[in-house]
Amino acid sequence: MMPEALSRLVAEFRKLPAVGLKTASRYAYSVLEMSEADAADFANAITEARRKIHICKLCGDYTENEICERCQTADKSTILVVGEPKDIRAIEKLGTYNGLYHALHGLLDFRKGVGADNIRIKELLERLYGVKEVILATNPDISGEMTANYIAGLLKPLGVKVTRLAHGIPMGSEIEYADEMTLERALDDRKEL
Amino acid sequence: MMPEALSRLVAEFRKLPAVGLKTASRYAYSVLEMSEADAADFANAITEARRKIHICKLCGDYTENEICERCQTADKSTILVVGEPKDIRAIEKLGTYNGLYHALHGLLDFRKGVGADNIRIKELLERLYGVKEVILATNPDISGEMTANYIAGLLKPLGVKVTRLAHGIPMGSEIEYADEMTLERALDDRKEL
Repeated sequence: MMPEALSRLVAEFRKLPAVGLKTASRYAYSVLEMSEADAADFANAITEARRKIHICKLCGDYTENEICERCQTADKSTILVVGEPKDIRAIEKLGTYNGLYHALHGLLDFRKGVGADNIRIKELLERLYGVKEVILATNPDISGEMTANYIAGLLKPLGVKVTRLAHGIPMGSEIEYADEMTLERALDDRKEL
Repeated sequence: MMPEALSRLVAEFRKLPAVGLKTASRYAYSVLEMSEADAADFANAITEARRKIHICKLCGDYTENEICERCQTADKSTILVVGEPKDIRAIEKLGTYNGLYHALHGLLDFRKGVGADNIRIKELLERLYGVKEVILATNPDISGEMTANYIAGLLKPLGVKVTRLAHGIPMGSEIEYADEMTLERALDDRKEL
């Protein structure tokens, strides 16, 4: 006999990624224990984020402006291409890359009917003026590899240098526990010292 | 360079129990991918739950009414006492108990300054008319045991039968891996077959 407003809140929390019934209930109860002002702030942050934030016309990253700050200030000779805006954050955190980004908002997946027209590939091609290198940093899985190869095939004839993030044994891990695909890739891509 | 509205949303999600930066970011990004209507529903569920739901005057469970439905319809000869309303859900799920509940909204903890006046013990005493048994189902930890013993001490002189949930080896587990306290309790409380 859970109050209806509580069941509804649990159902909403379950829509978040990887949140099951138990976690959703825990979150819902924690909302009931908040002050009314805190709950209002939380609700407000959700609507405001969804309302204010949209996709930068150029790079596809999330921004509150039409063109994001990075697209205006970054070194424009390099574009690093990722699947989703959240992948940009991971590279940004390194603090070593100062070029442009491009979020495709998806990866090619023919089984799911996601083709080249469904992701931001055309938008990437429109940004190539003055660009010397495009770094493909899509995930190292089937869709990510396919997308990287597809884009490389489009860009190379245009005379742009196309690179891909290196794959191999993760730092700090043990060769013994590396999966076969990673190990094979690490061997193929071995570097002379 | 995360948009301000996005950082704010991440900060709000971090206030949920056991949610760190990574999980909060994941939740925030998923909000950006919702439709505006879905995000509004989510926000609305938070404010509505917080606004509509309060504590039942009698049992302390969450309800949208002044007195919850269970307090009106349940068998009034038994009260099962728990620490928090969410503990009620666990017993309710069994579907075998049809008496009243009483949520204390806290457990005695003298180190944290939580005394008998800070939890709903007085409210429990006011509900004893017609009650034959009080089942103490506070958690089997120091605070829970202390609270159960304290309440038992108040109720027994009043001639009410006071019971405590049985402790022992959890079903489906192995004796080998039971912790010492549990094993000791299981031995002390052994039952004749």
